Order: sequence, then C-alpha cells, then structure tokens
Amino acid sequence: MPDALNPFRDCLGEGGVLSEPVRIAAYTLDHRALMRGETEAVLRPRSVEAVQGLVRLARRHGYGLVPQGGNTGYVGGATPEPGRRQLVVSLERMTRIRAVDPLNFTLACDAGTILAEAQAAAAEHDLLLPLSLGAEGSCRLGGNLGTNAGGLQVLRYGMTRDLVLGLEAVLADGALFSDMRTLRKNNVGTDLKQTFIGAEGTLGIVTGIVLKLWPAQSFRATAWLELSAGAPLPEIAALVRRETSDLASTFELISASSLGLVAEMRGSDPGVKAGPGGAVLLELQASSARIPLDDVLLGTLELLMERGYVADAVLAQSEAQRRAMWAIRETIPEGEKHAGGSVKLDIALPVSQLTAFLERGGALLAARMPEVRLSFYGHVGDGNIHYNLVVPQGQDRLAFTRAVEAGIAHDLYALAIDLGGSFSAEYGIGRFKRDLLARYGDPTRLRLIAAVKRAFDPEGVMNAGAMLPD
Amino acid sequence: MPDALNPFRDCLGEGGVLSEPVRIAAYTLDHRALMRGETEAVLRPRSVEAVQGLVRLARRHGYGLVPQGGNTGYVGGATPEPGRRQLVVSLERMTRIRAVDPLNFTLACDAGTILAEAQAAAAEHDLLLPLSLGAEGSCRLGGNLGTNAGGLQVLRYGMTRDLVLGLEAVLADGALFSDMRTLRKNNVGTDLKQTFIGAEGTLGIVTGIVLKLWPAQSFRATAWLELSAGAPLPEIAALVRRETSDLASTFELISASSLGLVAEMRGSDPGVKAGPGGAVLLELQASSARIPLDDVLLGTLELLMERGYVADAVLAQSEAQRRAMWAIRETIPEGEKHAGGSVKLDIALPVSQLTAFLERGGALLAARMPEVRLSFYGHVGDGNIHYNLVVPQGQDRLAFTRAVEAGIAHDLYALAIDLGGSFSAEYGIGRFKRDLLARYGDPTRLRLIAAVKRAFDPEGVMNAGAMLPD
Repeated sequence: MPDALNPFRDCLGEGGVLSEPVRIAAYTLDHRALMRGETEAVLRPRSVEAVQGLVRLARRHGYGLVPQGGNTGYVGGATPEPGRRQLVVSLERMTRIRAVDPLNFTLACDAGTILAEAQAAAAEHDLLLPLSLGAEGSCRLGGNLGTNAGGLQVLRYGMTRDLVLGLEAVLADGALFSDMRTLRKNNVGTDLKQTFIGAEGTLGIVTGIVLKLWPAQSFRATAWLELSAGAPLPEIAALVRRETSDLASTFELISASSLGLVAEMRGSDPGVKAGPGGAVLLELQASSARIPLDDVLLGTLELLMERGYVADAVLAQSEAQRRAMWAIRETIPEGEKHAGGSVKLDIALPVSQLTAFLERGGALLAARMPEVRLSFYGHVGDGNIHYNLVVPQGQDRLAFTRAVEAGIAHDLYALAIDLGGSFSAEYGIGRFKRDLLARYGDPTRLRLIAAVKRAFDPEGVMNAGAMLPD
Repeated sequence: MPDALNPFRDCLGEGGVLSEPVRIAAYTLDHRALMRGETEAVLRPRSVEAVQGLVRLARRHGYGLVPQGGNTGYVGGATPEPGRRQLVVSLERMTRIRAVDPLNFTLACDAGTILAEAQAAAAEHDLLLPLSLGAEGSCRLGGNLGTNAGGLQVLRYGMTRDLVLGLEAVLADGALFSDMRTLRKNNVGTDLKQTFIGAEGTLGIVTGIVLKLWPAQSFRATAWLELSAGAPLPEIAALVRRETSDLASTFELISASSLGLVAEMRGSDPGVKAGPGGAVLLELQASSARIPLDDVLLGTLELLMERGYVADAVLAQSEAQRRAMWAIRETIPEGEKHAGGSVKLDIALPVSQLTAFLERGGALLAARMPEVRLSFYGHVGDGNIHYNLVVPQGQDRLAFTRAVEAGIAHDLYALAIDLGGSFSAEYGIGRFKRDLLARYGDPTRLRLIAAVKRAFDPEGVMNAGAMLPD
C-alpha cells in the first residue's frame, strides 16, 4: 500500500482501505463495462465520523473523491476517472437500518443500505417502501438518491425524490449537513436536502436517509394486455388512471420486439403475446381487501376492449402467473444482452407525445439503420421509454455504441426534446451524458448549477468529472 | 410619482407602477395585520420580459425587491421592510393559464394565477389540481410555490413541491431560469427548480409553473367522527390509511374548543359534536364509480368503533351535509377571529408523536397560562397541528402576541422539536420566524443556505430580510 494512503488507513482502520489491484477492479469498472476507471484506493468507512475524517484527509492531501453505492448506474457516475487522482468512497459498510416508525410511515437508514434490505425492513412492519427497480438486490439507497432513481412504480408513488423526507450528508469541508427529521411538512427555509437529490455525489457524500413508507400493498390484480393496431398509448394510460382511481402502480409497455428477445433467450414460448400495438403489463395494488381490485381491473379492461384499444387480455389467476408476467418484463435487459447487448436511450416524454415519438423515432431508425433491431419498453405510464438499439450480430459492442451515440442517438434525442421530452429520464448524466447536458441544457441553468457546485464544494473535491464540465 | 421611479414606469407602462399611498397600502400590510411595511412603489409587470427589465432596473438603481402573490401569507414573507428601500413586485397581472394537457395530466400557468382559477382550469378538463387551502380564492401560485404551501389534501397528494414539475424564474441579474418541461422524469443534472420551491422569493422571482394534475375526484365519501376519550390519533390515522388504501384525502382533527369557537361565532348549534377526544373530518375520494367508497368508509368506521377509538360517527348523506361538515372546519379561523383573534403556532410532528405533544403541550399551557383558550385543529393525517392560543377577552391582540411569542411559544416549539417535530409545518419563515430559524436551525444547514443565497443573488436584491439574517 502506497505511503500516501497511510493517513486514510489510520483513519478508517482494518479493511477500510483497499488498494490491491485485484480487490479494487470491481469498483473501477462501470456497470455496463463501458469505462475502466482508475484509482489508488477504495475507502470503506463504517460511520459518518469516518466519512468526515476521510473527506478532511482527501482535501489535505489533494485527492478527489468519487462516492459509490452499489455501482449499478448506467452513466458512469461512480467511476473514478484516469488522471484525476480520485479515491472511491464506497458506502458498502454503512448499511444500518436506523429506525422504522410504523405509525409515522417512515424508515431511516444509512446510505449504504441495499434497496432490497430497506424494502425488507419495511415489510417486517407490514409496510411498503415502493421504490423498485431491476438492480434492487444490489443498488444502495445513497446511489438511488444521488441519481433520483425511478423504476417500476413511479406512476403511483413517484421518483426517489418523492419518497425522501430526510437526508444527512458530509460536505466537501468535512462538516455534516444533517436534516434527518421524519416530517411530511417542515417549511423551515430553503430546502437544501432537495439539492443533493439527483446531484450525483457532486455536492457531498450522502450518509443517511429518511424515506416515506406506505401500508403494505398485500392485494394485487395484474393483467397482460395485447394492444390493438394503432392503440393510442396516451389515451389508454389516462383511461387506466381514471378508471382505477390511480390504484394502478405499474403500467409497463413491452414492445413485440422486446418480447421476442426474451423468447429467443429462453428458447421457448413466453406464454403471453404482444398485440399489433405491443403489450402492457398492468398492475393494481391496494392495502385493504375492502377494495375490489379484480372488479376494478375487469371493468377497466372491458372499457379498453369496447374502445378497441385492447385486442385481448389475460388476468393473472395466481401468484405464479403474476410472477411469470413480471419475469418477462424484468428479463428484457437480459434478453438484449443475450442478443449481443444494446445501446440504451433513456427517453422521457410528456405522456401525450408517446405515440408521436414512437412513430417518428421508428421511421427514423428504419430509414437510417434498417439492420438494427429496436427493443423499446418501459414505464410509459409516466412517460419514460427505454428505447434500446440492439447490437447487430457480428458488430463490436463498443464500436456500435460509439457509432450510435455519435450519430442517430442525437437525432432521437433531438426528436424527444422537440416533443417536450428529455434525453435522460431516470439514468442521470454521470460521465457518459456530460456532453449531452452541455449540448441540450439551458445555459442559464447550467451556469447556476455550476455556481451552486462552487458554493457547496469550492475546491472541487466531490465527484469531479461527473455531470459538469471542469 | 418620484423621479426615481420613472425608469420603472417607462419599462412597465400604464398601471405598471403604483406609488400613491392609498393604492399601495394593501400591499404593505401583511395578511394578519401584524406588520406595516414600507415601499416607494408596487411594480406590476405583465410579462416575463417585464420582470427581467424591472430586476435589471432595481439592480442599477439600488432597490431591493419583494415578490408578492396574493399577500395571504402568515409570516410576513411578502412585506417590504421599513428602511430597506424595497419595491414590491406584485405578480397579480400575470395570470395566464398557458396550457392544460389532459393526456399528460399537467397544467402550465403564470405564477400570478390565483389558485382557485388554476383549479377551475383543471376542472374544465375533468381534472383535479389537488392543492387546496383556505386562501385559495385569493392566494397566487407563485406564493404557494415560494412557501411550499400545504393545506387540506397533503395526506394524499403531498405539498406544493410534490405537485411541481416545471418552473421558470427571473434571477437577480435579470437572466431567465427556464425549466418548464412537463415531465414526471427528467434527471438532467442538479434539479435547481427544487431550490426555488420554499425559498420564499429569496433566490429569484418565479414567473411560471407547471403542475401535476389528477383525474377529477368526482366520487366522495365524507364522515364526521366523534373520538372516544383517550383515542390514539396516530393509530387511528394509520388504520385509516391502511383500510382505505390511501383513498383518504383529508383527515382533519377538530378539537372540542375549536368547534366551540365556531358555535359561538354562529350563535347556533353546529349540528355535529366533538367526542371526548375531539372530532375528525374524514373524506375519501375516487375518480371512478368502480370504487365502492361508501362501503370502504363504513367498513373503516366499524373497525374504528370496534376498537373503541370512535364513539359515534355521522356519514354525509348529501352534498349539502358534506358542505356543512366542511364549513365547520373551514370557519375555525373566523371563529378564532370572532373570539378576539389568536396566536397561531404551526406545529409539525411525526404522526406517531401527536398524542404526546397534545398531552404535554396542554399541560404546559394549563400550568402557565390557565386563562388562555386553546384552539387546535388541522391536518393531523400528515402530522401538522395548528395550535392556536386565543387572545383572552380584554387583552390587546398585538401585546398578547408578543407575550406568547417571547414566552410559552418557545416552550411549545422546544417540545415539538424534542419530539422530532418542527416550529413551522407549512407557513414558512418569512420575517416573523426569522429569529426562530436562527435559534433552532442547524448551523451547518444555515451556513449552506446563506452560501446558496450568495450564489443565486450575490448583491442581495431578492427579498432581503426574509428567512435569512443579513
């Protein structure tokens, strides 16, 4: 271990500093294996005080810091950059559930807590932490907060920001910003905890979080919808919201091509079909048996079929059948990987513009890259489409990625933006979309983000290279 | 009109600058008539460009600016201070509904739009803007946003922050911060529109807003609950959330004393009673007749009675009866005024600590100020109690206010804070609670708020005197 790391070893103790190349390799490669980073060491504090100590040491010794949770991000936001002399701060040893208050519907925990473990801690009290995403078994809440993660139930419960009541963070000078009240209402001056949410670790290292909980949603009704040709997604989504009185927690579009990728990977019939307009996985949830969910769902489906929007529908008759439907949705990313990988465009749109985007984007792709298979799916109930271009057989994944990102991706982003949408719905900016932010971001807004960055972190200790230009 | 105001008159045109004392008096007195402010003029822009122009002029000519909406705030946040050379910027002529997108469930409007007019614009499309509060007929959305207003339906729909998707603001140098996308997901760098929400006009002048809408909640079930002696509010609120599957939009506590004040004002029996534990106004809402709201409510009430929490309950059998119940809740402030006025303590608590606060606070008041009538009521479903001390007969309102605020208020705030609560749930800080923020606020947090203020407004043009010390 290099001498320069001795102060960190003293501060963090046994196992607190990893520097052997074989131990740190997993921390320096981003989740999609698009960027190999570089660091002298991974710091693994066990307490808030240790985080404060390492921040002071880093500042004194001229290191930058890159906070890292589960390292499951899609935009390289937690990858230390070659040439920047950055140490990784992994929160993986700060995983304590601090408190669950069942009568206040809140959970307080360390930022290194794995999402699934926080979900489980809530479930022990018959409560629901509704944040839910593919990586929930390995992502950590500090990362979810830093990226304002979305996921599968935003339609009903909102983004991570909507779930956060309290937050604690170590600032760039080692001071502790502590705002861990468990209150739904607390108007006591500019709410700077909001500023940390989605700031991707550029303003400080989040160490503690208070989250809102809901009563456990023990009652569910789930259906697989085959959409008719030309079925208007915006109208369907609006009708579902109204007819289910917003008890719909999931409204996931699954295109025929995405379903096909799952079938190819499995080598078997997935047991459900896409209609000419694709398929939708629809789930209603309730915390009480007093709500007749099956009737509500059936009535809604009848109306959708009367209108001609839905050609056919299957209701899950058992938990096994429900899980089978969900497994299709959840294994689309694996299906893409099995086919050779994909370039992932994380598009957001006003829900009312979904059809327009799919039509115009599809035409663009067919004209410009007819050899490319498209896999689109996602949380269209809240306007978020994962619009992914599958790597054609025989092509190199990284080369294809670069070609798409330098080419047609810009046209698709420009189309989304033109329709009132965004080039990043839920993944964030990180290191991979920094140029896109500089290109599409409002200059006044970018100038203000930089000014706030300087106010929080004048020496640029925190996650330099992510989000902002130098 | 003084010559110094000529540039403003040129910029804002006819009716754009008011300076006659009789015309500006209403703008310089706060809503509760606790502070008479002072200004040379009230500026009334009609456009975003005009706001940019007046900000540049103010800066050039050494004026500070105090943004004002409907002037209905409770903490003097929009009142220009004597000696500060501040001009009032009233948004009252910027009231345009810019767009309603029924398939995206969004409404965009000017910040001067009166809340009730935005509600009506949504209702025209069979949609709901759920922000609802006593002042909705005169408060303006820019003020709601600046104070992160709460109100009567936070339990289900959240605070103003939870409803905001987009925002536009003129910065202290006249530049326009524009982030008016109508997206539910848009993770494109530090989300600075959040920073303006609840910043009470200290960071810029908000000129435009995009709000989330819901399907119209045309179906309702409403009940008046008489609580048993010792009925545990936290348990009742939790049970209601679970049994109604969060279809409860309102859970308002009304103490026997608050009900008594309404009866005294009316000089008649209000037609409903408080139980020994007070009363609760409970309302469920749905957007679809498929939800059997009456059954859900009845079943929930039966359970509450089985548990011994509720002694008796009345279900509203008609819209007239429902309105009569609501009228009681809504006229408590008038009842207090009729009795001589009140000092309003806007307490927030973890819901689990409500009973502890009411018991210990009541004992404190009985021991220290036995002559004072307490009127407590409010949004306890989300932990917010309006805990008001009625001015004793024959005492001067302002003198009593000062005595309470210098004395027992601190003990009640300290009690709330000790229980994990707050001295300001939804009113904000403004000018009246500035000392409380300095006293109870975390020093690191306050230092950071000041640093952010300097980043946004280095010359201190925006609402100096509100929230922060000089």
